[in-house]
Amino acid sequence: MNEITSAQLKSMSVSQLNALCDDLREKINSTVNSNGGHLSSNLGMVELTVALHYVFNFSKDKLIFDVGHQCYTHKLLTGRFNNFNTLRKEGGISGFPKREESAYDSYNTGHAGTSISAALGMAKARDLNGEDYEIIAVIGDGSFNNGLVYEAFNSVRALNSRVLIILNDNGMSISPTVGSMHEYLEDLSFDASDESKNSDRAKLFKKFGLEYDGVYDGNDLAKMIERLQIVKQQLKTSSVILHVNTVKGKGYAFCEEHPEQTHGVLADGEDRVNVQYSHILGETLTKMAEENKKIVAVTAAMTSSLGLDKFFDKFPERAIDVGICEEHASILCASMACCGLKPYYAVYSTFLQRSFDEIIIDICSQNLPVTICIDRAGVSGSDGETHQGVFDLSFLSSVPNLTVAVPKDTCEFAAMLKASVNFNGPLAIRYPKDGKRTFNTSDDSCFKGWEYLIKGDKKYVILACGERCVSIAFSAVGKLKQAGINVSLINARTIKPLDRAMLNSLSEQYIITVEDNVLAGGFGSAVCTYFCDSDKKIKPFAYTDEFIEQGEVDSLIKKHGVSAENIVKYIIENENR
Amino acid sequence: MNEITSAQLKSMSVSQLNALCDDLREKINSTVNSNGGHLSSNLGMVELTVALHYVFNFSKDKLIFDVGHQCYTHKLLTGRFNNFNTLRKEGGISGFPKREESAYDSYNTGHAGTSISAALGMAKARDLNGEDYEIIAVIGDGSFNNGLVYEAFNSVRALNSRVLIILNDNGMSISPTVGSMHEYLEDLSFDASDESKNSDRAKLFKKFGLEYDGVYDGNDLAKMIERLQIVKQQLKTSSVILHVNTVKGKGYAFCEEHPEQTHGVLADGEDRVNVQYSHILGETLTKMAEENKKIVAVTAAMTSSLGLDKFFDKFPERAIDVGICEEHASILCASMACCGLKPYYAVYSTFLQRSFDEIIIDICSQNLPVTICIDRAGVSGSDGETHQGVFDLSFLSSVPNLTVAVPKDTCEFAAMLKASVNFNGPLAIRYPKDGKRTFNTSDDSCFKGWEYLIKGDKKYVILACGERCVSIAFSAVGKLKQAGINVSLINARTIKPLDRAMLNSLSEQYIITVEDNVLAGGFGSAVCTYFCDSDKKIKPFAYTDEFIEQGEVDSLIKKHGVSAENIVKYIIENENR
Repeated sequence: MNEITSAQLKSMSVSQLNALCDDLREKINSTVNSNGGHLSSNLGMVELTVALHYVFNFSKDKLIFDVGHQCYTHKLLTGRFNNFNTLRKEGGISGFPKREESAYDSYNTGHAGTSISAALGMAKARDLNGEDYEIIAVIGDGSFNNGLVYEAFNSVRALNSRVLIILNDNGMSISPTVGSMHEYLEDLSFDASDESKNSDRAKLFKKFGLEYDGVYDGNDLAKMIERLQIVKQQLKTSSVILHVNTVKGKGYAFCEEHPEQTHGVLADGEDRVNVQYSHILGETLTKMAEENKKIVAVTAAMTSSLGLDKFFDKFPERAIDVGICEEHASILCASMACCGLKPYYAVYSTFLQRSFDEIIIDICSQNLPVTICIDRAGVSGSDGETHQGVFDLSFLSSVPNLTVAVPKDTCEFAAMLKASVNFNGPLAIRYPKDGKRTFNTSDDSCFKGWEYLIKGDKKYVILACGERCVSIAFSAVGKLKQAGINVSLINARTIKPLDRAMLNSLSEQYIITVEDNVLAGGFGSAVCTYFCDSDKKIKPFAYTDEFIEQGEVDSLIKKHGVSAENIVKYIIENENR
Repeated sequence: MNEITSAQLKSMSVSQLNALCDDLREKINSTVNSNGGHLSSNLGMVELTVALHYVFNFSKDKLIFDVGHQCYTHKLLTGRFNNFNTLRKEGGISGFPKREESAYDSYNTGHAGTSISAALGMAKARDLNGEDYEIIAVIGDGSFNNGLVYEAFNSVRALNSRVLIILNDNGMSISPTVGSMHEYLEDLSFDASDESKNSDRAKLFKKFGLEYDGVYDGNDLAKMIERLQIVKQQLKTSSVILHVNTVKGKGYAFCEEHPEQTHGVLADGEDRVNVQYSHILGETLTKMAEENKKIVAVTAAMTSSLGLDKFFDKFPERAIDVGICEEHASILCASMACCGLKPYYAVYSTFLQRSFDEIIIDICSQNLPVTICIDRAGVSGSDGETHQGVFDLSFLSSVPNLTVAVPKDTCEFAAMLKASVNFNGPLAIRYPKDGKRTFNTSDDSCFKGWEYLIKGDKKYVILACGERCVSIAFSAVGKLKQAGINVSLINARTIKPLDRAMLNSLSEQYIITVEDNVLAGGFGSAVCTYFCDSDKKIKPFAYTDEFIEQGEVDSLIKKHGVSAENIVKYIIENENR
């Protein structure tokens, strides 16, 4: 197919538009199968997006996609068709809305529940600026469970402005959507004819200052155009919530039947690694839970991606998926720990940022034995700025009572999990997605202190934390050995607390730290601070003070300053100084 | 009066209990007037708390107070009557629930909206442990606007447990409660007889798995006992939400009429300082807004405490109070900035923790010109662990694109605010409550770099940030001068970015940093990292890795390691080494 622009489609007939939808769907499917990306959520949104472009004018109107897992059709219609093959590649089209990429992307998203707040802020600005355009937030039922949505609804009337909220209800967040609000909506979804139920919904949203209109088939293009034209008139005087049902994965039988598996798709030929840390979490925790009845697992709509399917199947009573509610999940863990349970909260590093206050106040200031299992830590790759897990070592390091562990491989991760059962305080274990190698050591005292992996001459020592950085350090040590420089390597497997005894015992004058995290407030910064008035020379390798874009994980790590080459270069230059 | 225990009151008559309420109210009033504390919220809760103790048995049942501004009566009835005169003093009774203080305090609170999540977690634990007791969360209508409440409601049915939620509706958070959910409740509050409205409420809460019962007069002791006894039976089979109206400040005419002024009360004789930073914010921002129509102010239910009353009066269209919704407030600011407005988000340091993810994703990754005015930064005193603002320099330092400024006095704060209008990126300005002195300098380039306040001999230099630390440093410099040691002092008014040019120009070998923040990831840590491979000796003064308890601000600062004495001691010892 050739590029069709937003402007062109306005003169097309419905049957032409339906054919366009088929083409767009094919384009999305083929691109995602080759580049990886969010498939089924995007497939479900094709007709609705085309209808939006038909009815509204996005050279002035603003469209905000919650999370952004469903913006591909919009991108294809707004100048990004011809380089869509660069989707999620370094320097290419982002998988999420990006203001830097196009004037048609009005607000960057990536984390759930922000779109209604953003729409309201923009509406307020429009009104104060005396401008005239429409603002539309598209939000899925998964995001709809997040507390931000309620906070935003609570201020619709106070802000006294007009926005259109489209609730795209497909019964799935990433896992099937849980939560009563969703059940409530679902309960009502197939009764557009039932006036009493419709009136219940209308009454509820009216209280929040919104006219309710629904439920319609969001995959029926003609119907969507008709409703949006009506809604556009309503918008002149009021905020509106338009409730539609779409089929996640629409158009592809496998995707429709397996929306969870096809939410995020691997790129063609993408490295299938030896083992994922999530697999180790699932296996180990399930085994532990057989022996220990106090163990519970908590997730925020990520059961499968975190490796917890088996645990959830086997121990439904002790498995809690709260939907996309990271704050609530943290407090549940804290309060269950108050009453003698042993909670494990599994979460992606980037989403844990939502729980920062609850980690401080609920978990750590009460010093409760909650174990936070932090997946996708460090650079996470193709999802870009909003999904990199490169702040956790920093924000966790500042919290009293918390121990922060970083296993060097999946074996050590399993050992840490086993040891965590008897660990009587807040514990965070952070790890990347993929386990690519294991290091042959068998030190079981994983929270007790660091371990030497290589003992060299007494001039340089590298302190590395986590599999990626230990691997990088190993590689550097090998290259340096060839150059006749024998460097020691230590597995710094707890970055909080530091292993003070080992630090005090170091006779090397040069200490190199390596971490998959920003420099400020992270591991290297802690080591620098520890040695602040000593004669040691510290050289931390960590990410500099900038957001990390999308790309291949290994390439980004190197590009942002953490590499064996840089370590080797530093030491060789120091030798020659 | 003498101590009456929870056990004793069970055998008292209603008239005796009413007399007890009068005595408790008097005890609370006299203690708060002498010690400071939360007055009107506690006065409103006396009858309801006595009724709870009459009906339930808190040696096994668990009571969770949301935020905790209303727990004094509970404390007086559970073994803390006789030392209640130590309320909010160093080593004394906390103004918030504290598990460390009493087995009757089942969950520590301080930040809004956590109680329902905590109750649900405890209920889950109770069920899994096969135990038998009741769990009650008491939450005010102010907290009820927070998104956490919605997240918790969404999981009541999924968790399949039983809790009692008491919605204590007094129409006030700290400022009058805003938000549609409150209007919704208020709309219904005085129509207990109107069955259709009652049925609307019941229907809504039923969807969330709760039986609704209300609205009743929460200051009517006999009525409360009667309802709680009925609810206690319902609780055997279902979760219940009991909706009551109470009068904030009940029993004291001035408090009833001025609940906002009497929410937090100063201790008798408490230092009335020259000027509060909040006053400077209000005055300066209001003046700026007269000239610049793009300026908007956003607060999360703290208008008055943040100094914004005048701004809100004068520019109601550009003044937004979103209720206790710190996350939503951040996104509103980001999105308004997207559309050309100049938003100022004023917030307490400790509550800003709730916005951490939105600061990263919405404000900073989009590099938007939002100014965050962070009040009550550093040690904040009598409210204790949950209210200290000692993490902000750490968590803000790790965020790319953000500038973090720390004015040395209220004059510099005003200058920074004025300069912020033309500052084209995310900016955070953090300051304590009180402005006690001003330093006579007139350097206007406040974001451009640091400034020398004192030039000494070229051996020691102190880098201090913020009024408190600059004052401490001044005092240290004076004492050292008497000992014949002339130390330089620099006002480090931006801690991110560091003033690299000035750091590079320092010829002193010894660099001392002083900050009102934890050590990990803060200002001193950044300076240590900057000089990691130099020959400089750095000595950071900051708070060590522990939660800071309640007490007097100056005393706590010193106790946790930041004092002129310690700086002097370090330098003198170094001289004598």
